[in-house]
Amino acid sequence: MSNGAQALIRTLVDAGVTTCFTNPGTSEMHFVAALDSVPDMRAVLALFEGVATGAADGYARMADAPGATLLHLGPGLGNGLANLHNARRAKVPIVNIVGDHATYHAQYDAPLQSDIETVARNVSTWVRTSKSTAELTRDAVDAIVAAKGPPGQVATLILPADVSWGEGAESAAPPALAAPPAASHEVLEAVARILRDGGRTAILLGGKALRERGLIAAGRIAAATGTKLFVEVFPTRLERGAGLPVMERLAYAPEFASIQLDGLRHLILVDAKRPASFFAYPGKRSNLVPDGCEVHELAAPTVDVLGSLEALVEALGAADARPHLQQPSRPTRPAGPLTAEKVCAALGAILPEGAIVSDEAVTSGMTLPANTGGVPRHDWLTLTGGAIGQGLPVAVGAAVACPDRPVFALEADGSALYTIQSLWTMAREELDITVVIFNNRSYGILNVELARVGAHGAGRKAKSQLDLSEPALDFVQIGTGFGVSSRRVETAEQLTDALARAIPEPGPHLIEAVIPNVFTARQLRAMPYALRALEALPRPIAAVVGRRLNR
Amino acid sequence: MSNGAQALIRTLVDAGVTTCFTNPGTSEMHFVAALDSVPDMRAVLALFEGVATGAADGYARMADAPGATLLHLGPGLGNGLANLHNARRAKVPIVNIVGDHATYHAQYDAPLQSDIETVARNVSTWVRTSKSTAELTRDAVDAIVAAKGPPGQVATLILPADVSWGEGAESAAPPALAAPPAASHEVLEAVARILRDGGRTAILLGGKALRERGLIAAGRIAAATGTKLFVEVFPTRLERGAGLPVMERLAYAPEFASIQLDGLRHLILVDAKRPASFFAYPGKRSNLVPDGCEVHELAAPTVDVLGSLEALVEALGAADARPHLQQPSRPTRPAGPLTAEKVCAALGAILPEGAIVSDEAVTSGMTLPANTGGVPRHDWLTLTGGAIGQGLPVAVGAAVACPDRPVFALEADGSALYTIQSLWTMAREELDITVVIFNNRSYGILNVELARVGAHGAGRKAKSQLDLSEPALDFVQIGTGFGVSSRRVETAEQLTDALARAIPEPGPHLIEAVIPNVFTARQLRAMPYALRALEALPRPIAAVVGRRLNR
Repeated sequence: MSNGAQALIRTLVDAGVTTCFTNPGTSEMHFVAALDSVPDMRAVLALFEGVATGAADGYARMADAPGATLLHLGPGLGNGLANLHNARRAKVPIVNIVGDHATYHAQYDAPLQSDIETVARNVSTWVRTSKSTAELTRDAVDAIVAAKGPPGQVATLILPADVSWGEGAESAAPPALAAPPAASHEVLEAVARILRDGGRTAILLGGKALRERGLIAAGRIAAATGTKLFVEVFPTRLERGAGLPVMERLAYAPEFASIQLDGLRHLILVDAKRPASFFAYPGKRSNLVPDGCEVHELAAPTVDVLGSLEALVEALGAADARPHLQQPSRPTRPAGPLTAEKVCAALGAILPEGAIVSDEAVTSGMTLPANTGGVPRHDWLTLTGGAIGQGLPVAVGAAVACPDRPVFALEADGSALYTIQSLWTMAREELDITVVIFNNRSYGILNVELARVGAHGAGRKAKSQLDLSEPALDFVQIGTGFGVSSRRVETAEQLTDALARAIPEPGPHLIEAVIPNVFTARQLRAMPYALRALEALPRPIAAVVGRRLNR
Repeated sequence: MSNGAQALIRTLVDAGVTTCFTNPGTSEMHFVAALDSVPDMRAVLALFEGVATGAADGYARMADAPGATLLHLGPGLGNGLANLHNARRAKVPIVNIVGDHATYHAQYDAPLQSDIETVARNVSTWVRTSKSTAELTRDAVDAIVAAKGPPGQVATLILPADVSWGEGAESAAPPALAAPPAASHEVLEAVARILRDGGRTAILLGGKALRERGLIAAGRIAAATGTKLFVEVFPTRLERGAGLPVMERLAYAPEFASIQLDGLRHLILVDAKRPASFFAYPGKRSNLVPDGCEVHELAAPTVDVLGSLEALVEALGAADARPHLQQPSRPTRPAGPLTAEKVCAALGAILPEGAIVSDEAVTSGMTLPANTGGVPRHDWLTLTGGAIGQGLPVAVGAAVACPDRPVFALEADGSALYTIQSLWTMAREELDITVVIFNNRSYGILNVELARVGAHGAGRKAKSQLDLSEPALDFVQIGTGFGVSSRRVETAEQLTDALARAIPEPGPHLIEAVIPNVFTARQLRAMPYALRALEALPRPIAAVVGRRLNR
């Protein structure tokens, strides 16, 4: 017999939820006090809730088990919401424990009280306020079941303080989860028929299909049928590198994605959504599926995605087909004053085997895929929901999940600042993370978007909204202040040297790479015309452009 | 004729909403582009949405006009939620403009899409998604009316990108707001009767009653009737200092607040809530109204609070009563190694006339009120909703609203880190803010709460959740990295010197005051017993303790 918090933690651990990213307050103090009673639960403190939720996401992506958070009432959940949004889009399992006032305290509408369930619903398919200590661990099991899916989901268990401190709780046995079914025979046959017919067909892979098993199955299908393979724009976890099948990722910019998809007659979705532009732009279509292209779904996120792909391989008799594999290659080491592209090349030149890359470099990272496609095997984690401030926390969680692998956080300056407190948790937990800040001293992407949305007449005030140079941020000082060994580089040689030192040395390192914007002011002014010209390209040329875009 | 964004900004400015705290993304680019078309709208960029929302709150507190924000979809609103929660509790007017995807884009469920209205409802009484460019400025007027109240409220206007960029909009005339009624004759008479009868009666003042007019009216009532005056625990804006009526603030700790309220027969609320403890604690009552005490409401937040208080003065014939005024006094300058109390004394020794103090010093600031009660007139802004991370942003907003007044942000180390990005906006806008970080290298309040909730058996893991010393945060490096002139002090003399330099110099300054925790580990262990002893104090002694607690 134990109190609610103790039994809850025991239940989580027994079900494989063994790491909790925390930012507790008074209403969570019994949960905190109970941590020592369950040695197998690891609690990782964050200085801000967005770090905790993003880290839970990164952890779940790499551990293939739910990440847990401990948050303080509605405002704590609010602070964690943006990265829970990204986790929801990533379809990873997360169990949030959100403390609340004691049940009998609600009537006083104390200052911290708010409608937590309402906030939680924005990101959580499963939301429940536990009503009593006796029911708490059963509620926790339901939360774990919901989180595990498929697909993985954000489940939020609201824990009133008296339910937590109440005595007489017993831990609950872990849930027995049924394996999800694969695609039906009819679906398999229909898709196989399209692929056998050949001609202007592509498969769009997302979610769970992007791990080695799925990639190899897809690679066999492509080799046997000549279909094209695409990877969704923002994969949760993409295994890639030399020796894995070659994949082409859909571009973020709709003008480029349209070129990639141009001329398709059939598009087959595997744990992926229909292609649509990230944002709407005046006078442009949001739907990126070409006219006359039929969309089919082999595997929804709710089914056995890998089983479905492998069943399709069987149905096509493609088990012995040899996927087109990525050959080993590395860019040559760049030299001279840094540019964004040289930073990407330098990373391609050194990325060690088994690296985990958390990529939130935004515009500055445009050439990262091309520079790293042929390096040794690694995992690529991206900004699944578009809510910036995810890269550093995801790196924290990935490093906690995989202590023996080198983790890289490739960060834009603007994005890094939303959850800059991540640096402290990296230092405290001595995580092997190399943070590279692409510091172009602006919201580079917004310069592009301002040009692209056709927002004319932007003057001094408008432009100052995209500028981060007044004052310039000093990431070396900020990193050092948070306890992370930090260094600024301005040439490719300095960067190569800094990377060579940071990677073998234990603990986190930050490298601030000072670079110009990817696009010059002149290029930005010309962008609307350039995009129009691009869209008018003849198809064969467009196809070449498309292939070169991404690997 | 103009586009939606241009007409919206014009409508806001015409209604007196002239400052917008921003963190825009692609869906807000037309709003950004339109800023230059309306010169009277000031846009203040923040690197994180919690800075923008907290600054809008601080601005509204000091400008007595709505603060506006510009946020990027659901995740942007989520990042701003905690400080909107504080603003909701502060009853200040805020108009959030939250960009959304174009209306026709919603069907694609793009990565950044989420149910924004759901998130907004946690903090906003008024939520609306504008449906068309033609209706946009009318929607904006409705938002402004809702925000202005009374009481002031958070109104959230969701602005789809195509409604923003659509042409043919016209700005709308500012709303004509009716003055709210004062308390009814019956209520006035009933309250006057209680006060005339005398004996164990107190008035609890909150919200709008805490400005000079309200304080003087309450002071006259107290002088004429002998009633006690209390100020709510966390005032939105408390005018105080030498020459204003003496007030006793209710303590945060329920054990102390109970002593202050002990023995009352009548408690009269003026724009304030019934006293209840901030959190629930096992075995303790949440309701702090003593048994046998009747609670009456003179003025709800919805009425003319100041008019009601002044009508009560008339009803009591107290117009010529002379309030008990605070005499001028300053603590002597402290000397030697710093403690939290010496920091408070040093501040009391120098706080200049007209200062605005944003107080989020938590445990370390316990003696701030006693040390500053007799200094020249100033305004005190507090953590109204209990969601930490509000102090720095509120200082930003206050400094924008009052460029000619010296602003002080008194910050706990833990609280400062939630919205540390505020420092950059202070530097960019060259705001006259002196930030004092009370760095005790822990979540000091949680050490107290862990002891107070009776969470026993807290071991190494539990204690590490409250510790910020591994690694120690270096606020001088962090501040410098964000562009703010920063200095560390470890003695009272160094602090006095740093304050004397920072205050006259234009622009922001940060002073990191390294201090021990207010309570030692031994005191924390003894705290449950000490609190029990305190509650058992005889009433006359308890009353003395209560009076000394707060000014």
